[in-house]
Amino acid sequence: MAVVLDAMGGDKAPHLIVEGAIQAADLGMKIHLVGISEKIEPLAKSHKNISIVHASDVVGMCDSPSSVLRKKKESSIAVGVRLAKELKIPFVSAGNTGACMAAALFTFGRISGIKRPPIASIFPQTTSGSCIVLDVGANVDCDVENLLQFALLGVCYAQTVLGLESPRVGLLSNGQEDKKGNILTLEANQALRESSLNFIGNVEGFDVLSGNCDVVVCDGFVGNVLLKTAEGILKLTRSLVKKSLSAKSLPSEDFSRFIQEMSIFDPYKPIHCGAPLLGIKGHCSIVHGGADAKTILGACISAEQFGQSKILAKIQETIQG
Amino acid sequence: MAVVLDAMGGDKAPHLIVEGAIQAADLGMKIHLVGISEKIEPLAKSHKNISIVHASDVVGMCDSPSSVLRKKKESSIAVGVRLAKELKIPFVSAGNTGACMAAALFTFGRISGIKRPPIASIFPQTTSGSCIVLDVGANVDCDVENLLQFALLGVCYAQTVLGLESPRVGLLSNGQEDKKGNILTLEANQALRESSLNFIGNVEGFDVLSGNCDVVVCDGFVGNVLLKTAEGILKLTRSLVKKSLSAKSLPSEDFSRFIQEMSIFDPYKPIHCGAPLLGIKGHCSIVHGGADAKTILGACISAEQFGQSKILAKIQETIQG
Repeated sequence: MAVVLDAMGGDKAPHLIVEGAIQAADLGMKIHLVGISEKIEPLAKSHKNISIVHASDVVGMCDSPSSVLRKKKESSIAVGVRLAKELKIPFVSAGNTGACMAAALFTFGRISGIKRPPIASIFPQTTSGSCIVLDVGANVDCDVENLLQFALLGVCYAQTVLGLESPRVGLLSNGQEDKKGNILTLEANQALRESSLNFIGNVEGFDVLSGNCDVVVCDGFVGNVLLKTAEGILKLTRSLVKKSLSAKSLPSEDFSRFIQEMSIFDPYKPIHCGAPLLGIKGHCSIVHGGADAKTILGACISAEQFGQSKILAKIQETIQG
Repeated sequence: MAVVLDAMGGDKAPHLIVEGAIQAADLGMKIHLVGISEKIEPLAKSHKNISIVHASDVVGMCDSPSSVLRKKKESSIAVGVRLAKELKIPFVSAGNTGACMAAALFTFGRISGIKRPPIASIFPQTTSGSCIVLDVGANVDCDVENLLQFALLGVCYAQTVLGLESPRVGLLSNGQEDKKGNILTLEANQALRESSLNFIGNVEGFDVLSGNCDVVVCDGFVGNVLLKTAEGILKLTRSLVKKSLSAKSLPSEDFSRFIQEMSIFDPYKPIHCGAPLLGIKGHCSIVHGGADAKTILGACISAEQFGQSKILAKIQETIQG
């Protein structure tokens, strides 16, 4: 029940990150909060479940990913990932995604046989299940072998973390027919058809939410566009609804029905709060830069579940299998 | 004030297509309805603004695009596009997109200098403007030259149809920074920076709706994923809202405020009902296969505006100039 949390990463760091840490600590989680101690100590006060680990440097959102390995070895990301490896617990950060990836790849290392670790994002579905989309940004140019590995990694995640026996895998394309796609996906479709996976064929953008499949495979460029489009629209419609309807003027029955309907898109469900980097010998969960305290809380909870799952062994077995 | 309308294209053809045609004709538009006359005559009855043009064949949604040029020369799409060329008016279809494109390319021909005509989709924006996204599906594998031409075509559209003087052009990528992107977009970013266009840099999925730019450039694979994701989520949230709130139980003030807020996403605004194929020597507007009568009406209105604009001359001047 412990995670290492980067106190300095994110648009609202360190105060909202620390606030999220306190919420998680209040629930009994042990949080190792890494960052500039004089900045975080006054915020965290002395919580029995929070230990503060000093890191003298910070990776900025505009720093190059490799800076964490060269100039900023004492940054909260670099120190945090090293600590997570030592303690064998997950690392969570809302900081510079590229730097988190670089530090995690360098420190934990890739699971043998994995070419390009992807970032997996867990989307809510209208059927109240979840859909794993990968890659959502780690690898913007991919080949067929990469996509096949993403499918395998997604299936491992769905089996060990979501508890699905035979996850349905879809390939993101511009149409459901096998002959629809670009050069990469046409070839990947064929390779997936020939694999032993439960491949349901091509899927389209909206299928990520529709409940038609459990794992959606795509390159990190397309996945990132999909993620940001979906996030943006969901956020916008929530705010439009909120803006135009005031709870008190609504008959309470209607309002609670409405909230229930919209709750499938609750961005604070822990599983939607952090995106794990899959295929490394450790646990690294990447959180949206704009994360608030509640999102940090959710990310800590899901990272911890992820850390306690048997996913690393499962991936090793599958890839080397 | 006239268009050629494919009566046989779309999931709900011919009845909802004809219904849309009647609505347009009632507004004074002249509609040339093309299809199997014995099927459409009983539906259209005798409307003074509707003329029925018989076409003995139909292109199915699963037919290959090239079928329209070989086996199905007497299909409603092939006959309709030939008629539109002859009458110098726009062609509108909710049928097989690939077949529409093939027929339009073959019959109208490309404007000299245009390599790959893209399909442009016009997205609503939160700022009540519109954003042109292209390509949304015509060309799934693109090079830098293609993307540059899409930018030019989008600007021509924004200037002549939307009346914008200096449209802001964004390049769809996985981050706003110039160094974010895949091989294609990194190169395209540089080329757009060196162009004379009002290039605002990389944009992300949600910027299509946010009002930050007027023209968003991407390859047809990514654009199609974006389009279908956005459409699906907007449709879903609308139905969730509708399902959970019944108009009569809401204080009327709240309800009308809500409807107003959501109306920026009105899918029936004519400009959002049809997606023009740009760069051909004619007008071809592609409508969603699931189109209902109101969408067909909107598509006829926007196609007609498109036909009366000076876009063809503007494109010719821009590309050849």
